[in-house]
Amino acid sequence: MEDLKLTTRAENFSDWYNQLVQRAELADYGPVRGTMVVRPYGWALWENIQKALDSRFKATGHVNAAFPMLIPQSFMTKEKEHVEGFAPELAVVTYGGGQELEEPLVLRPTSETVIGTMYAKWIQSYRDLPILINQWANVVRWEMRTKLFLRTLEFYWQEGHTAHATEVEAVEETERMLGVYADFAINEAAVPVIPGRKSENEKFAGARATYSIEAVMQDGKALQSGTSHFLGQNFSKAFDIKFLDENNQLQYAWTTSWGLSTRFIGAIIMTHGDDQGLVLPPNLAPIQVVIVPIYRKDEEKGAVMEAVARVSAGLDGLRVHVDDREGITPGFKFNHWELKGVPLRVEIGPKDVQNNTLAISRRDLPGREGKRFVPMAGFEAAIRDELKDIQRALLTRAIDFRDRHIYDVNNYDEFKAVVEDKGWAKVWWSDDSDAEKQIKEETKATLRCFARDVEGEGVCFYSGRKTNQVVYFARSY
Amino acid sequence: MEDLKLTTRAENFSDWYNQLVQRAELADYGPVRGTMVVRPYGWALWENIQKALDSRFKATGHVNAAFPMLIPQSFMTKEKEHVEGFAPELAVVTYGGGQELEEPLVLRPTSETVIGTMYAKWIQSYRDLPILINQWANVVRWEMRTKLFLRTLEFYWQEGHTAHATEVEAVEETERMLGVYADFAINEAAVPVIPGRKSENEKFAGARATYSIEAVMQDGKALQSGTSHFLGQNFSKAFDIKFLDENNQLQYAWTTSWGLSTRFIGAIIMTHGDDQGLVLPPNLAPIQVVIVPIYRKDEEKGAVMEAVARVSAGLDGLRVHVDDREGITPGFKFNHWELKGVPLRVEIGPKDVQNNTLAISRRDLPGREGKRFVPMAGFEAAIRDELKDIQRALLTRAIDFRDRHIYDVNNYDEFKAVVEDKGWAKVWWSDDSDAEKQIKEETKATLRCFARDVEGEGVCFYSGRKTNQVVYFARSY
Repeated sequence: MEDLKLTTRAENFSDWYNQLVQRAELADYGPVRGTMVVRPYGWALWENIQKALDSRFKATGHVNAAFPMLIPQSFMTKEKEHVEGFAPELAVVTYGGGQELEEPLVLRPTSETVIGTMYAKWIQSYRDLPILINQWANVVRWEMRTKLFLRTLEFYWQEGHTAHATEVEAVEETERMLGVYADFAINEAAVPVIPGRKSENEKFAGARATYSIEAVMQDGKALQSGTSHFLGQNFSKAFDIKFLDENNQLQYAWTTSWGLSTRFIGAIIMTHGDDQGLVLPPNLAPIQVVIVPIYRKDEEKGAVMEAVARVSAGLDGLRVHVDDREGITPGFKFNHWELKGVPLRVEIGPKDVQNNTLAISRRDLPGREGKRFVPMAGFEAAIRDELKDIQRALLTRAIDFRDRHIYDVNNYDEFKAVVEDKGWAKVWWSDDSDAEKQIKEETKATLRCFARDVEGEGVCFYSGRKTNQVVYFARSY
Repeated sequence: MEDLKLTTRAENFSDWYNQLVQRAELADYGPVRGTMVVRPYGWALWENIQKALDSRFKATGHVNAAFPMLIPQSFMTKEKEHVEGFAPELAVVTYGGGQELEEPLVLRPTSETVIGTMYAKWIQSYRDLPILINQWANVVRWEMRTKLFLRTLEFYWQEGHTAHATEVEAVEETERMLGVYADFAINEAAVPVIPGRKSENEKFAGARATYSIEAVMQDGKALQSGTSHFLGQNFSKAFDIKFLDENNQLQYAWTTSWGLSTRFIGAIIMTHGDDQGLVLPPNLAPIQVVIVPIYRKDEEKGAVMEAVARVSAGLDGLRVHVDDREGITPGFKFNHWELKGVPLRVEIGPKDVQNNTLAISRRDLPGREGKRFVPMAGFEAAIRDELKDIQRALLTRAIDFRDRHIYDVNNYDEFKAVVEDKGWAKVWWSDDSDAEKQIKEETKATLRCFARDVEGEGVCFYSGRKTNQVVYFARSY
């Protein structure tokens, strides 16, 4: 399969993505329409994402737990907006143990309702607050048009759910976790996301406000890559999450929720990938360095493999793979690991042994440009430095791409031309939900988020009204 | 809640367990009957179990992946014994996205069917074998009588699924993973399990042979704590997992599966717990050392907290918690952390500061016996050594308990008396499925597993026939 060339991004970006996900063995479709199998290479990537996020969650005071996947159908209806948002996407269990159930159960599309019910039971007093819990879980949303990682019937995510004594604390938490997501995306995945508040039309069903990190894909579309919701007292009132405050007054708690899913793998693929395959950021790559021994004659093998073993042992703490498969050409191996996006390739052949060198090739720089020889003396530091440099270079390149694909737009004609095939439109915007719907209908572009740190005033590109708000519009996944 | 005394084990072992699980905040019941919420303290314990197992799986060449939870109902019927075993326990999804489904879907009770389907797709040649995949997942089994951790509608586990070119390799894998489970149980959880083959009556639905690790609980009952199945070619034939061998002949693969679940937390509780609460093995305890600062006057606080900070900093790499809550007595804190089973408590008061000492108390040794003073000079090594000693002591005590509660039994009257309330019966057994069923009906005792390394011959306690097989019978969870 691997020797068949990928469709190029320019030919058909969507085909390129679909082929790449399957050929790089990240994921496959399951037997039920729209379900996903995350294959070992894809899951190893997800595990590295999990570690990077989980350590950040714990550093900000959160703990993990696990709540049931099965939710009484009636729970979904307790928060009015929540049920409207999720009802069309529910999977419903009607039989259990051979019996028809008295009340159907839904598979969690998200867990505010079941977690809210438990919080109502656990929280009595202000001393019980805040509660800062996260869970790593699978969720089910009945999507009609599916695409691996981006939209499948079942997917994997983490969902944080917190309860606080005051509105201020809950708002701070919402912002803090948005910041955690942005820090993770930028510094671990080299995906230079833009964080900001969503519009009323685009917010989470039941939230007072939703914030997201938004990423620019190489086809110019936006990918919402993580969300953080300030839920106000909406779920507290629906699920009766109350506490006695310091003055012995009964109060509703203030809650938040925030999630990032396996969809983020899609963001990594479409930010960094090229026509040869995946390009993975060293901080998250399942394999950071692949070593390919090269020899033609049996008498060369011993010395080469001895050098390979020395290099491999010297890279302790890095994720290193030695591709010592027999009967496969080096060229085939190079293509294989390029497809898989391994950041750095090390080649060691008889000449290298003789010259006391090794050849290193960067995945992010094509051909000769990314290849150089490194003396065996000091290879450890050279390789570690190179990985750091690749991580930096990927981010720099992605920032450059992002900034070249966000256009300041002043009128609707320009806007249409931009979102049609160029990228994002950054516009002054006199917030208007109906206008936003109209634009979506006419251009398929949605309001991705409000820009932060806007200074001064401008004229709304659509209404012509004066405004101090700037937003991003784009077509999105 | 915590100041209410637990029911003692002697009064009512089952009540003791149920109270302890909830009061120690390990788990709670979810809103749907029989579902479980694993609370942060319980999940932290599970995360440590996961780490200890996952590193062993990876060291034996396995990788992780994730397969869909939704399985077409027809898949369950493809392996005849499998469907008979699991049909009564299935939860069935009949609606998705507001539409009745053409084919109902079941929530995985285990994943042989869906994983087998994918393996059939991925495996072409002997070069693709072995496949050694594990997944950490939730599964659903519609149990009527539920008990937290031991039997709930949804639970958490890992399930390994491997495919091999030869029967010998698959049998080796089955045995290897049984060994991994036993090593984990004994050396990390200090649960001295007995590994062995299950009888035909008790094996997994669809397996050629099932092996399990069996643990003796403090009420004398057995708890099956992990299983490893040799599936032969049963699932390969049902799901068409075929490969071309080295001679270009099409062959069915040989498969195995093996699983260990959150049920294991029940094994830890019922092996080590006492009337004061949990007793957790240091290797898995979410908190290994709790430090309680003790002072009465404000002017004592500074020096005490300074010593606490010094000790805490000196225990880098251990899981340490400082209980610096104000307005709560030391006695209350001691009870709290005893209930939670923290292996070692450190107290530091003004006298300790003066004498350059600290007091350490072992959870596994009650009162004075487990308390001693340690000089500040060298506390790091003293505490680390003490934790190792606790780990060893728990295992020694549990082995002793186990061996005192397994009785060599020679006739059915003795047998009945033993399994009624004393413990396990170890007997010579002329393997007979009907007799086994009869015994189960009359005594509620089941054949737990075949003893290994049996020498010589004996007389079956039940049939009076000569045999070279020895088995364990017990009532079980």
